[in-house]
Order: sequence, then structure tokens, then C-alpha cells
Amino acid sequence: MSERASAHKRAQYRHFLPIQTRWSDNDAYGHVNNVVYYSWFDTVVNEYLIASGALDIQASAIVGLVVETHCNYFSELAFPQRLDAGMRVAHAGRSSVRYELALFGADADTASAQGHFVHVYVDRASRRPVPLPPALRAAVERLRI
Amino acid sequence: MSERASAHKRAQYRHFLPIQTRWSDNDAYGHVNNVVYYSWFDTVVNEYLIASGALDIQASAIVGLVVETHCNYFSELAFPQRLDAGMRVAHAGRSSVRYELALFGADADTASAQGHFVHVYVDRASRRPVPLPPALRAAVERLRI
Amino acid sequence: MSERASAHKRAQYRHFLPIQTRWSDNDAYGHVNNVVYYSWFDTVVNEYLIASGALDIQASAIVGLVVETHCNYFSELAFPQRLDAGMRVAHAGRSSVRYELALFGADADTASAQGHFVHVYVDRASRRPVPLPPALRAAVERLRI
Amino acid sequence: MSERASAHKRAQYRHFLPIQTRWSDNDAYGHVNNVVYYSWFDTVVNEYLIASGALDIQASAIVGLVVETHCNYFSELAFPQRLDAGMRVAHAGRSSVRYELALFGADADTASAQGHFVHVYVDRASRRPVPLPPALRAAVERLRI
Repeated sequence: MSERASAHKRAQYRHFLPIQTRWSDNDAYGHVNNVVYYSWFDTVVNEYLIASGALDIQASAIVGLVVETHCNYFSELAFPQRLDAGMRVAHAGRSSVRYELALFGADADTASAQGHFVHVYVDRASRRPVPLPPALRAAVERLRI
Repeated sequence: MSERASAHKRAQYRHFLPIQTRWSDNDAYGHVNNVVYYSWFDTVVNEYLIASGALDIQASAIVGLVVETHCNYFSELAFPQRLDAGMRVAHAGRSSVRYELALFGADADTASAQGHFVHVYVDRASRRPVPLPPALRAAVERLRI
Repeated sequence: MSERASAHKRAQYRHFLPIQTRWSDNDAYGHVNNVVYYSWFDTVVNEYLIASGALDIQASAIVGLVVETHCNYFSELAFPQRLDAGMRVAHAGRSSVRYELALFGADADTASAQGHFVHVYVDRASRRPVPLPPALRAAVERLRI
Repeated sequence: MSERASAHKRAQYRHFLPIQTRWSDNDAYGHVNNVVYYSWFDTVVNEYLIASGALDIQASAIVGLVVETHCNYFSELAFPQRLDAGMRVAHAGRSSVRYELALFGADADTASAQGHFVHVYVDRASRRPVPLPPALRAAVERLRI
């Protein structure tokens, strides 16, 4: 339904997380609300970084601030569907990373929605950008396309 | 932390659903917010009813209206923990069902939180209580304690 | 719809906060989901405590842990309705407070839903219960019934 | 924090809705989570359309499907701040509208975040695009820049 993007395939992504939908994901139109996709983006990225030893929500000296998010929606999803979130890294700069994400129905090879978000990593206290720590850089490089 | 309830064990429940936590489940105190437990209650009950053929969100002639909810919290949970939700039925009346729910850390036998909610089943249009349809009664009887 | 509680009137509450509903408050049935009421309870209690100088989310030495929540639902609400949340304090112990809350349609004198939650105040680091600090005790005593 | 966009001023928007923050808007980092901004976008657009007589969530023959969303974040917000959402229309085609939104702290003239979303209006049953009905076209034209 958008002229500006065409739906990706699973093979274009490097890491996957199964996503469990919830009753509250459906809005008054009976499908997953557009906002919810971004909570899945947050979940897959942070779960990957935590599992990789690159992020500790409470203790890390750095915090990832989201400076840009974007999503294109191609087909409707609805609770109680099972989904998979795909993740890859398009760019890793000195302090920032552009993560790209897509949502696939459990049996689908074509994305129902895809988007990106850009994290700038800052010092937790000063909120000033800092270079990506080595564990974080290693984790994101593993998903670079 | 509550004098009024003591934490249940897994063996006291009849049906389980693994629960995937999300980044947004954690609040400003870094643990799962008290509100989120209820969205898991909604999810496990509705997923069970849909999988049992007892509910179709869009098409069923009946709708379950929630008339009472309750939860006691015993220990903190936090994303990215894996959890299991336990479910059982304490009472099934002419038009209403009392569901009881508990949340367990993936490796825990004792509940971190437990509660209940009461559904009154009503006609979708008139919002008047109706007798439980046979498929719904059969589904809830299977989880009766 | 519940035999166990009857709907309160505005005059039974001591403090009110107007509540703005959101698109996402409505669920697949087109009314405010039962879970959302609890996010309003959290909002009115914390906004009152912060405005009273009794709580600083980031800096307070204490944290309020929710150990019990409850809600009875009498009539449906839906975005884009305007609401008022009523608040009162039923009990203030050494370390705990029982807050009682009710939701009123902007033009209604009778509650659409009402409930309570119990906060135990703990030391932020040790998570051990502590006596209510004077500013907090003063704030809750002002709403005692 | 983004090179790609610069923060707008209030004078660049045509319609404003005060936004009440909630406890649950803050995430584990103590600021409003990036996802929440989109729930405000949904709220201001739908509240405007409903108040204009251009949309009835339950009864309208048409449904607005979101096909693209985007947001740039410039400065952090946090509950219990008061905000204003600004809204304008950048483009209205045969079946689609591009809404542009910005969030302002109650005392700020510069946006903390801004973005857009694109609605394609479809027939509720067939999900096929339809021409904007006259009441909807009039409502969006009033906010055209």
C-alpha cells in the first residue's frame, strides 16, 4: 500500500526472534495497531544486545537514545498470530547504529512490515555521544549487511 | 509483601502459556509494571479460548466483558526474562467464569504474582448476559479446579 | 455486573485528575480495555505524589512497590471520551498505603469502574520496607477518608 | 541528534491537542519511550477527525489504514510533563493523507520530536482504497500547509 518501499524477504535479515502477540496488540479495528510494531523493534534489538553481552539495562555506562524511527506497513497482522522479527544492521558509525527490522507471519517469507531505528549511544549521566564500546561494536558488526 | 495471599505453585494450575517479555514491560523502576500482568492475563485467557474453538474475536455472537480483576504481587520480574502463565477456572456460572492466573519465572516453581478475572459473557449487540455456549463451557470445564 | 461492589459517587473521593483517553485505550471490542484502567490508577497516584513533593521518580530514596491491585467495572468507556479519576486513601500504615480510585465519565456522577492498589514503600537499593517519609505521610493523610 | 531533520516551531502547525503523559509512558531509562510518541500521533489525528465529524470508529464505512510512520527525536520528555501535539496535513491525494505531527513541551516553542504518518482510506469490509469522503476531505484541507 506504500509506493515508497517494497516488502523484504526473510533471506535479507541476519537475526530472528519469534514474537508472541498479545490481546492488547489489536486495536479497535481488530488488527495490530501501527504503534505496536515499534515495541517489537525495541524488543528484538535490546534482547539481541543483552544476549550478546553488549548491553545491561541497569548497569551499562552507556544508553542507546533513539533518534529516528520509521516503518512501512504492507499487510495486516492480528493477535493471536505467531510472528518472527528479522533484524540486521545497515550502518555502524562512531556512536550510532542504524538497525533494520522486519516482521513476518510465522509461515510467510515476505514481510508484513519493515522499518528501521537509529540509536545514538550516549554516556548515561552526561547524555553525550560516546564511541561504541567493543562488545557493542562486535555485536552489531555480526549483523551488518 | 501482602498478608492476604500466599504464592501458589505450578502444580495448582491446569494450563500454561510461555510469556515473552518486551522492552516496554519495564517501567521507570526497571521492573515489569503492575499493569502489564493484566495484559498477560488477557492474553493467556483469550489465546486458550480461541485455540479451543470457544471464541472468535471478530465473529462470535458473544463477547466476554471483564467485570472484576485482581492481582497480588510477590516478587519482581523484568524484561528480558522468560515466564510462564498458569491458568485455571475456579467457577463457571450460567453466564460468568472466574479465571485464576499466575506468573512464574521460567525456572521458578513459586508464582511471582497471581490473580483472577471474572468474565460475564454477553450478546455482542445487546450487551445482555447470555448462557455460556457449549464450546465455551466445555473449554472452561477442562480447567476447573 | 458484579454482585460484590456497587458503584461509588464523586462525593466519596477527595482528589480528581482529568483523564485524556487515547486511541490505543480501545481494544478489539471498541471499548477501553480492562488493563488500561490500571495505567490510569498509576498515573493519578504518582502525579498526586509528585505534585505534593512526596515523590521524585529518579531521586527519591524510596520506591513504591505495588503489592495488590483490584478493579470492578460497571459500565463501558471508550476513546475519545473525557474522564475524571477520583482518588482517596483508605489506610496508611507504617510502610504501606491503600489508595482507592474511581473513574467517572466527564458528565457522570456514578463511577464506571473503581478499585484500589496497595503500595509498600521500600528503600530503592535494599528493597526493604521503610517508614513513610513525612512528606509522603502528609500527602496521603490529606486524602484519608 | 539527527542530521536529517531540524526541529520545527509551533507556528508551523495548524491544530493543537494538549497531551497528558502517563506513568507508563516512561521506560526503564526514565524518559518517554520512542514508541509512545506514535500513540500520541494516533490520538491527535483520530480525535481531530472524530471531532470534525469525518470519522466514526464503529460506524464509518471507511477505515484509515496506516501505511507509513516516521519520527525524529530531538530532546527527551518524561512523565509527568504536560505537552502539546501539533498537527498539519502535507498532502491529500485521492485515497491517502499525509499527516505531520510534532510534540512540544508545554512551555517550549521548539519541537522535542516530529514525524508523519500516511493513512490510506479503505472500505471497511473489502479493504480496498476509496476516494476521501467529503467530510474527511474538508477536515484535512483545513489543516493543509
